[in-house]
Formats: sequence, structure tokens, C-alpha cells
Amino acid sequence: MTYRYDHPRPALTVDCVVFGLDEGDLKLLLVQRSQEPFRHRWALPGGLVGMEESAERAARRELEEETGVRDVYLEQLYTFSAVDRDPRERTISIAYYALVKMTDHVVRAATDAGGAAWFSVTDAQDLAFDHDLIVHTACERLRGKLRYQPIGFELLPEKFKLSQLQRLYEVVLGTPLDKRNFRKKILAMDLLRPLDEVEQGVAHRAARLYRFDSRRYQELRRRGFNFEL
Amino acid sequence: MTYRYDHPRPALTVDCVVFGLDEGDLKLLLVQRSQEPFRHRWALPGGLVGMEESAERAARRELEEETGVRDVYLEQLYTFSAVDRDPRERTISIAYYALVKMTDHVVRAATDAGGAAWFSVTDAQDLAFDHDLIVHTACERLRGKLRYQPIGFELLPEKFKLSQLQRLYEVVLGTPLDKRNFRKKILAMDLLRPLDEVEQGVAHRAARLYRFDSRRYQELRRRGFNFEL
Repeated sequence: MTYRYDHPRPALTVDCVVFGLDEGDLKLLLVQRSQEPFRHRWALPGGLVGMEESAERAARRELEEETGVRDVYLEQLYTFSAVDRDPRERTISIAYYALVKMTDHVVRAATDAGGAAWFSVTDAQDLAFDHDLIVHTACERLRGKLRYQPIGFELLPEKFKLSQLQRLYEVVLGTPLDKRNFRKKILAMDLLRPLDEVEQGVAHRAARLYRFDSRRYQELRRRGFNFEL
Repeated sequence: MTYRYDHPRPALTVDCVVFGLDEGDLKLLLVQRSQEPFRHRWALPGGLVGMEESAERAARRELEEETGVRDVYLEQLYTFSAVDRDPRERTISIAYYALVKMTDHVVRAATDAGGAAWFSVTDAQDLAFDHDLIVHTACERLRGKLRYQPIGFELLPEKFKLSQLQRLYEVVLGTPLDKRNFRKKILAMDLLRPLDEVEQGVAHRAARLYRFDSRRYQELRRRGFNFEL
């Protein structure tokens, strides 16, 4: 079966940048290509957009098919349309990104794929196509977002230590933060509720636990509060 | 001539949301459709992406062809991919937006178009396709941007009154601002250089003129300064 059009049409694909957070590192979910071009190279999960699905649905479908990862909130990142980005033919790709807790997702490669795995973002280089550029764009977006809103609380346990939250910020921003300054600023936002609990089973002095106050967060957002650290 | 593919392909278009600022209003550049569907309805300038051009270049080309407006900085807004957004066939559109000074651009409709004109954003309703949604998305983006960075200075004369800047903010945000509070906050950002000049040729008490300090702005951006009003 072939499909005919009066004008030539680019192929339309989606690509998914899924960031995973583990204890101390920011990871990226990649699949290994089993076919040319870029055979054996690592790439972002993705594929063609079907005629009966939105681009976002296509992204969720491809992500699950190629990596087993499902039920993540994908946000549209950017559409990449450079004329030469795919050596086979003109291809335009709508990229999506998500930030997930790695331990919540079991990665399982598709049967026809070389593999699927988490890579440290700093090691995720020389990817297929223009995927280095897509990853770079996603990293920038993630950092920009963290500056303007307290993201990532959903990646922490319900009760967490301030040092865990600081580590999350450091991992996303890719830079160490001053402990005293971080605590002062984050507590001044009045988004954290200190609990009458400390961490359990530690030899050293037990740290206080906190909880994220999402109602307070919604209220501050409505009032146009600035969450910048 | 026809083009054949093994899989069906969506049509790929671009749409341009061009906001124009005049003295006291935020306008939107629209073209009137001369053909079905949505014949005689107003729509965003746009059209098919060619095989030898990036989406951004297609947007610039379509904008100029349909409205005569050129040399504007288009920023990618969002890609709209709902399955039923075009009644003719599956069409995915990459939307761009820009904010320009209306008086800098002469609008001239293409010979085959019904017309091209500026509309007050509040009047720009019942547009063709899903263009109401695209415009809404662009308005939200513009407001979000204004909260985090001092945009729009390029839309003012080189030397301007604080009241002109306030009006720009009010028009984009769609809400009146308290004069004293606005002045206090905007001056505290230390981005404006007061000049030893006042406006000329006015009967009432002449207002002081200011200039935007773009070097200072770049420096503050590097340091992660928060420009929120």
C-alpha cells in the first residue's frame, strides 16, 4: 500500500527525553539502535506519529514500546526541523521531556531494539541524529524551570531531609550549592512543613524531616510568587 | 506530479502569532481566508512547510507572503497536533510568536488573500481552525515571559517615560498596575538609567525620560537575577 500526495511531505516523529533522578545523579533514558543509520548508537526513544493519535500520545506510546516506561507526564519541549537532521529523508521531530523517579520505573527494551538503559547525563554523548542537541535543549529547560518554580518534590519521598532536596537541586542545576544559603532561601519560601520527626536508623545526629505543602504552593502560584532560589 | 510514501503522512504547517504594540493596546496580526474551509473567517498567517526549509524559515516566509511583515524575531511557541484540528485532513502545525512595534511594520495582504489587518487581541475571536487556542497559548506565554524578564523594551522609543513602560506591562498583562508600586519595583531592578532630559512639548508637568541599560541587564541575567515585578 502506498499513499500519494500532491506535495512532498516530511516524515513526522516524536522523541522523548526522560530524566531520571536517583540518589545523587541525573540520568537519561536511552535506547540502542539496532538498524542503520546510527546502528548500535544510543538514541532517545521515539518514532513516527500515527495518523490517529496526537503527537503527545505518540510519544507516550513509543516510550512504552521501546523502554517499558509508562505513566509519565510528558511536557512538550521543542520541535526540531533542521533540513538535514535525518540522513535518510526530511524528518521533523516534536520532542517531549519528563523528570521521573528512576526507582518507580522498570526499564525493559523492546524485542527488536538493541537495549534500553539509564545513562548519566554527562555520559550521554555522541547520540544518534541531532539527539545531543535535543538533550542539551531539555537540560536547559529543566534548569530554567527549577529557577522559577519548585519542581521535583514529586521525586522525593513524602518525608524528606533538606539535604535530599538540596541534592536534587544540585543534580538538576549541575552545580554545588551553599548549604546555609540553600536552607535559608528554601525555608523562606514557606513551602516546607517541618515535621516532629527525624530520620530513623542513623548513627550520626538525625536530621529533621520535612513535607512539601502543595496547597500553600498553589496559593503562592496564584499570587504570582517568585520561587527563584 | 504526486509523491508516494509507504505510510500515510500528516500535512505539516506553521502558524504565526504576531503581537503588535501601539500606544495603548495589544494587537494581533490576522489574515482573512479567501478559500474553504473557514472562508471569509480570520486566521493566523501561515502555511505548509517546504522540504528545503526549516519550520522557522517557513514561518518567516509565510508571514511575509501573506502580510508583508518581515524581519521579526519569531520564537517557537508550541506544536499543535490534535487529530481533528483541520477538517480537510490530518494537519500538524508548529506555531511561532513575536512581539513587534506596530508602527515599524507596513501590513499588506497577499494578492490572493481576503485581507490582512491588526485586531485588538480582545476582538480576535472565532478564528479559523484551532487558532483561538493558539492565540490563547501565545498570550499565556507572553504574560509568563514578562513575569520573568523585562521584555518589551525594544518596543519603546530609546528614551521613554515610566508611564509608557507601565502601559506596556499593563497591555501585555491585561490588568492595570498601581503606579507607585510599579515605579518602585521597576526602579529597584536598576535596569533603567534616568536621563537629564524631560519630555518636550507638553502642557502639563514634563516627565523624566529613561533609557534601558542593556549591559546591566545582561550582567544581571548572568547572575540569575529575578526580574519578576
